[in-house]
Amino acid sequence: MNEITIAKIEELKEYLKKIEYLGSSISLLHWDSLVYMPKEAIEYRSEMIGYLTGESYKLTTSAEMKEFIDYFNGIDDLDQLTKAMIENIEKDYNLATKIPEAEYVQFEIDKALSQSAWEEAKSKNDFSIFKPHLAKMIATNKKFSEYWGFINKYDGLLDIYEPGMTTERLDGLFGELKGFIVDLLQRIKNSNMKTSDTFLKGNYSVESQRKLGEAILGQIGYDYERKGRIDVSEHPFTTNFGNKDVRITTKYEPSDFRPAIFSLIHEGGHGIYEQNIPNELEGTSLASGASMGMHESQSRFYENILGKSLAFWRYFYPEFQQTYKELERVDLISFYKAINCVEPSLIRIDADELTYSLHIIIRYEMEKLLINSDIDIDDVPKLWNEKYKEYLGVEPQNDAEGILQDVHWSGGDFGYFPTYALGNLYGSQIFNKLKEEIPDWNQKINSGDFSSITKWLNENVHQYGSIFKPAELIKKITGEELSAKYFIEYLNDKFGQIYDC
Amino acid sequence: MNEITIAKIEELKEYLKKIEYLGSSISLLHWDSLVYMPKEAIEYRSEMIGYLTGESYKLTTSAEMKEFIDYFNGIDDLDQLTKAMIENIEKDYNLATKIPEAEYVQFEIDKALSQSAWEEAKSKNDFSIFKPHLAKMIATNKKFSEYWGFINKYDGLLDIYEPGMTTERLDGLFGELKGFIVDLLQRIKNSNMKTSDTFLKGNYSVESQRKLGEAILGQIGYDYERKGRIDVSEHPFTTNFGNKDVRITTKYEPSDFRPAIFSLIHEGGHGIYEQNIPNELEGTSLASGASMGMHESQSRFYENILGKSLAFWRYFYPEFQQTYKELERVDLISFYKAINCVEPSLIRIDADELTYSLHIIIRYEMEKLLINSDIDIDDVPKLWNEKYKEYLGVEPQNDAEGILQDVHWSGGDFGYFPTYALGNLYGSQIFNKLKEEIPDWNQKINSGDFSSITKWLNENVHQYGSIFKPAELIKKITGEELSAKYFIEYLNDKFGQIYDC
Repeated sequence: MNEITIAKIEELKEYLKKIEYLGSSISLLHWDSLVYMPKEAIEYRSEMIGYLTGESYKLTTSAEMKEFIDYFNGIDDLDQLTKAMIENIEKDYNLATKIPEAEYVQFEIDKALSQSAWEEAKSKNDFSIFKPHLAKMIATNKKFSEYWGFINKYDGLLDIYEPGMTTERLDGLFGELKGFIVDLLQRIKNSNMKTSDTFLKGNYSVESQRKLGEAILGQIGYDYERKGRIDVSEHPFTTNFGNKDVRITTKYEPSDFRPAIFSLIHEGGHGIYEQNIPNELEGTSLASGASMGMHESQSRFYENILGKSLAFWRYFYPEFQQTYKELERVDLISFYKAINCVEPSLIRIDADELTYSLHIIIRYEMEKLLINSDIDIDDVPKLWNEKYKEYLGVEPQNDAEGILQDVHWSGGDFGYFPTYALGNLYGSQIFNKLKEEIPDWNQKINSGDFSSITKWLNENVHQYGSIFKPAELIKKITGEELSAKYFIEYLNDKFGQIYDC
Repeated sequence: MNEITIAKIEELKEYLKKIEYLGSSISLLHWDSLVYMPKEAIEYRSEMIGYLTGESYKLTTSAEMKEFIDYFNGIDDLDQLTKAMIENIEKDYNLATKIPEAEYVQFEIDKALSQSAWEEAKSKNDFSIFKPHLAKMIATNKKFSEYWGFINKYDGLLDIYEPGMTTERLDGLFGELKGFIVDLLQRIKNSNMKTSDTFLKGNYSVESQRKLGEAILGQIGYDYERKGRIDVSEHPFTTNFGNKDVRITTKYEPSDFRPAIFSLIHEGGHGIYEQNIPNELEGTSLASGASMGMHESQSRFYENILGKSLAFWRYFYPEFQQTYKELERVDLISFYKAINCVEPSLIRIDADELTYSLHIIIRYEMEKLLINSDIDIDDVPKLWNEKYKEYLGVEPQNDAEGILQDVHWSGGDFGYFPTYALGNLYGSQIFNKLKEEIPDWNQKINSGDFSSITKWLNENVHQYGSIFKPAELIKKITGEELSAKYFIEYLNDKFGQIYDC
């Protein structure tokens, strides 16, 4: 690269920083609205967010941005980081500019109406209220994907959240996984080993849960003081404004410490990822996780692979037993089995580690149908219920616990759900590699030493931000393409042992 | 106004809303940085604030803004609100555009350096570290005031915070007030009545203080749930993003409930003002208090005139006595005298109600000298100390408790201090009128009924936002020009009674 190109890169980075500042401001406004904002401020807050989002859109789609893209597309010898940067901003540019502005604006309006219709429909348990809005969300997504040039329309939506992922690829991965889980569930059902978790219910003060949660997060490497926070919100989430201000939330339930503790570990995994994105990526548009699926790989690794392992609780359980009299007479193995109790159920966010992926696969199959076929919207709730019956053996009694349970579609988000299950695949494939390179990982966790594991993830995953596409990154880390094999092996070992089947 | 003008007003309001959204976003970023932000995020946060401030500056000084101003200056039959709106945006336009851009940018840089030099100087108790920065802050303020066209340079600075206020007018008001307070202090010194507040020290849990503070704020009319918040920060302050999201902060000291309780009532007064600015003023640039002094009149009215009155504590004291065993054997009158104990001291923010204004008058006299005369910067600390000796009878032992105690000058803020004492004058003059119109105000407070008082302030002060200049507003409310008379009478009655002098 010659001097002019190098100077031009600096210029572009200054430009991208503005978009980052706006994005971080929007994220703070949003975080605040979910965590601390007084109720009556909601309308004004939406106006503030709307204004800043519009400004960010202008910068993302400006003539200046187009000039940058054209200039760099004419340079042959770009380094890898710059190449990734240009590809990324060009993608954002295209996503926005290929849609006629009037349709983009109309979609924003429709989404707001759709979301409030969904809220009403769910509370009244009446799909018909949401139906026309769902139809509109589907139609708009189809049209947008066409604008973006995708022949397989669902591929266009997948690509937003998981760059490069395709329906064909997912069919293979999820097909294999589905077959295995359905089969394992049958084995568990037939097994003589019965487990339960009802004895974990008790009376756990918020303060004690907070203290235990903080202790765990500190130990696994989430900095919740100098570079992060922990707060409370209705639904747990993670957000960040740069790599030195990462914020996770949870919700405490006095009758059960599991929702708070496991959501903290989950969000902590996201948080550790963002806190370890290197400073040098600021202003490159690459200063975040490689994809939603890769992000989810980190949260699920900490939450499930580590956080629901025997080794993990061998270290942390004594402190829980000291804190909670309810656990005094529960031995470690019983506790371990209880937190890993498999129980097919209707609600995704309450699912256990094994059945969770089936909830996702059902949504994936539904989305494919909704986007790529001309299914009658009236048939959708029934189809949902049939899939639950077939894969999980449970049947929703109403639409609120069926088709209406998740917020995603009401906000026009199709193609997002698969990333939750992809996280499981990435996570266990990465874990397989980590075990090779840190053979005594188990002993380390036994003794509460997470530093080498988190350091390994820093070096192999976090430090790259989104320089690499997820498919490239998983190959770089593990030497192989993404496969369902490692997750299947992991599930088979773990639940085969627990259920002796 | 013809149809075109009316349409143009709507257009201008849409434009001004953008500036408000940016301003509100900046305020939230700032609030968050003082209340919840992780420490290491400070640098990135400054960059975010810097970027949004620059965008706001661009909108305030744009060619489009100039066109609006020129257009409306050519219309004869503007209504009062539009006239005030145009005057206000023209003032902001001139304040910014009359300074050469390079000098404006340089001032921002100099301020940051000056503030950190001040911090170092204060912690090392060494004025020489801060001296060159103070000299630069003074020189820049002088120059800016000249750019703005002021012959009396200090008038130009006063006008930023207290529109229309002049040095000549303040000389009169503060001269009268100073003479009276110095004299009353002498009478108190000679009086046989000795009071003390040392017996109020104790052990007061943060939680109990928070609960009592919330109870008081709810009662006086600050909505801290649906339209506001209460948080903790190093120094108490109030901020708001629109009229439905007002946030006050305080700091709890376990050894003394007074700092938290009285700062909460003080900030609550600011908060009540902002919560009662009418919705209609959104987008007019007039949706905030009439001036810093008028704002301070509300905070000081609630904090001192109400909050340190006998009637107020006749209502609230029983709950304090029930909460704190330390107060069990302290009768109401002793408590009332303790919270009104007069004790000349060195530190402004710790001053009692009577001596507080002298701290301000000293700063006012110093600022006049610094801005309007060519005083040698080396003489400044000595001059400060002499004034403390002369007016308050106390002498700083070092610069940290003398010239270096306040942050204001290090940030280039000259002309701000007087508004603190002006608040006392406005507040007592307004109170005098309120007493005429609500003759049983005292009985109402006795019984915890603040609603008619707060409603009276809503109708007479808050609802106007900054449609009127403070001089117009005080006349509109009380029928008279601002005078020192009412504050002097109030102080004379109150402290004359307490000290029997």
